[in-house]
Amino acid sequence: MTYKIAVIPGDGIGNEVVPQGVRALEAAARRFDLSLDFIDCDFASCDYYERHGRMLPDDWREQLGTMDALFFGAVGMPERVPDHITLWGSLLQFRRVFDQYINLRPCRLMPGIKSPLAGRKPGDIDFYVVRENTEGEYSSVGGKMFEGTEREVVIQETVMSRTGVDRVLKFAFELAMTRPRRKLTSATKSNGISITMPWWDERVAEMAGHYPEISLDKFHIDILAANFVLHPDWFDVVVASNLFGDILSDLGPACTGTIGVAPSANINPEKTFPSLFEPVHGSAPDIFGKGIANPIGQIWSAAMMLEHLGHQDAADAVVRAIEKVLAAGPDEAPLTPDLGGRGITDELGNAIANAIKAS
Amino acid sequence: MTYKIAVIPGDGIGNEVVPQGVRALEAAARRFDLSLDFIDCDFASCDYYERHGRMLPDDWREQLGTMDALFFGAVGMPERVPDHITLWGSLLQFRRVFDQYINLRPCRLMPGIKSPLAGRKPGDIDFYVVRENTEGEYSSVGGKMFEGTEREVVIQETVMSRTGVDRVLKFAFELAMTRPRRKLTSATKSNGISITMPWWDERVAEMAGHYPEISLDKFHIDILAANFVLHPDWFDVVVASNLFGDILSDLGPACTGTIGVAPSANINPEKTFPSLFEPVHGSAPDIFGKGIANPIGQIWSAAMMLEHLGHQDAADAVVRAIEKVLAAGPDEAPLTPDLGGRGITDELGNAIANAIKAS
Ligand SMILES: CC(C)[C@H](C(=O)O)[C@@H](O)C(=O)O
Ligand SMILES: CC(C)[C@H](C(=O)O)[C@@H](O)C(=O)O
Repeated sequence: MTYKIAVIPGDGIGNEVVPQGVRALEAAARRFDLSLDFIDCDFASCDYYERHGRMLPDDWREQLGTMDALFFGAVGMPERVPDHITLWGSLLQFRRVFDQYINLRPCRLMPGIKSPLAGRKPGDIDFYVVRENTEGEYSSVGGKMFEGTEREVVIQETVMSRTGVDRVLKFAFELAMTRPRRKLTSATKSNGISITMPWWDERVAEMAGHYPEISLDKFHIDILAANFVLHPDWFDVVVASNLFGDILSDLGPACTGTIGVAPSANINPEKTFPSLFEPVHGSAPDIFGKGIANPIGQIWSAAMMLEHLGHQDAADAVVRAIEKVLAAGPDEAPLTPDLGGRGITDELGNAIANAIKAS
Repeated sequence: MTYKIAVIPGDGIGNEVVPQGVRALEAAARRFDLSLDFIDCDFASCDYYERHGRMLPDDWREQLGTMDALFFGAVGMPERVPDHITLWGSLLQFRRVFDQYINLRPCRLMPGIKSPLAGRKPGDIDFYVVRENTEGEYSSVGGKMFEGTEREVVIQETVMSRTGVDRVLKFAFELAMTRPRRKLTSATKSNGISITMPWWDERVAEMAGHYPEISLDKFHIDILAANFVLHPDWFDVVVASNLFGDILSDLGPACTGTIGVAPSANINPEKTFPSLFEPVHGSAPDIFGKGIANPIGQIWSAAMMLEHLGHQDAADAVVRAIEKVLAAGPDEAPLTPDLGGRGITDELGNAIANAIKAS
């Protein structure tokens, strides 16, 4: 069987790191005898927007709906097009229309990477953020009243549904069941956000009834963020709403040294629609064009894609190749400047591809 | 003139640290010849709720409205009363009814405190979070539909007003003007929260027109949280909505070592209503009763109160006393266990009061 993979580099360094992700995938395909068919897509970018006045072609649902997975770089160049236009016009559409209701983001301190947290070493930080990915605080519902006057009032609604919340909780509990510590932390803010969050807590408590083996705790988002810094070793699986998960899944990787290596999977678990795999980092206009972007977040996302497609062995090989190259350190491996090395994107991608081939 | 100060210990360790704050205030009053009249209040606590079925007496507005300031501990014991009842029934009422629209929270790495961030020392981290404190994501507007069924939908509205946003921005720009670096960072999420946050950005841009001297930047809240960990030295004054400010003002203090020492001021700048001063930490049921709570957040809040009342010299003396005792270290000073010492709350409070007297 041949997997059809849409390759969507998007904006900025997406164009630099996606080719390295594809290179890793090609190496893994050769090594594990997989057949991957890559379909290049130029939409979901500011270039496309400036040419067409919209972020996506009219038939994007049909074009992408038949794919087995979407391999995505980064989108958004706020100097050119406002972020809410680029994002609501592409990535957030993909997540919603293809019902990718799980955003899964590992936070793991990798060998060879120095944590900004004093005294933390590989093995000390290893958890997942499970983020609700289709509803909640990212709604498009609301509006303005008395616009442009002193009385102006602006309203935006957070919308949570039982369907939406229960399914992400279920995924998180199930994931926690597969982990040795069987620990789940819920991110809440039921002391301040007085309607949705107390209800979120109730749904968590109800779901917990089905998982007596799980050791469950909850923290308000403010102290939870603080505890990511003070006690990152406390966490195993963290489940959060769309916004809280967004924050925690940048903060977690920051605590593990660099968001340049962090991957993410936007998953439709039922496989009714294609899932989307992208690094946590953005398009980084400040370093775009210099060829020094770190491709590891993209390559690790490729590993998550292989796992989703059912090829755990290939996924493991990619992650091990990343670890091997990182562990070699900046003197032995062409690590990019953010990792303390003097390598460029292409060299680091090549080194990882070679490590996959040699695996 | 005599200042009338309402003393509201609230719950848990509020009862242990507030007396130390009062002790510091008494020492400062003697040293700087101020007249402070303390009025003890037992409401805004779970004890009061369990006796009266509500968090506050009916005439709380009258009782507290004539005060010059409110000196507050912490409220909430979720094992006894759900957080949204205790908080919306007390602290969040005070903030809103007394129009304390600024929540000002310094994040400063103090001498003698070890930052969890590798290689950061006193002087490296020194910024303020200016948090909107009356509207935004903390609304009580919204509700449930199809309650208790599979179709259940829960909605909560974020409500921002031009009045509400502009005045907090103005305060933040003015504060930045008083600081050597004249730097202001706005917390946004206009790529995901598509109505309120792009509008927040517009208000910031408009206000910036009046402050050409200020060097302004903005970050989405996810990467901003990450940058608190990766580059805390970047920040000078950070302005944020109610929820984002809540998160950042726990995360910032976490990066400076312990939220046990972090203070906050809920300010009504016009002094139409009393302002409220409280530590950033909560009621900490886990350590309540042991006598080991760190009183410094409360004492530093007392310093912010003295500053608000117009007594900068007394405020400075309190902060210097805290710094002196902290700098002495756990061998010389009775620091509490969270600071690596063997002292108890009372001893640490006493040491700081003595340092104020000796100043
Ligand atoms: C207790 C809670 C409602 C409160 C808030 O979120 O405002 C607290 O976290 C704070 O920061 O003062
Ligand atoms: C670009 C932005 C809309 C997006 C989000 O907030 O979901 C990004 O931060 C992410 O985490 O994938």
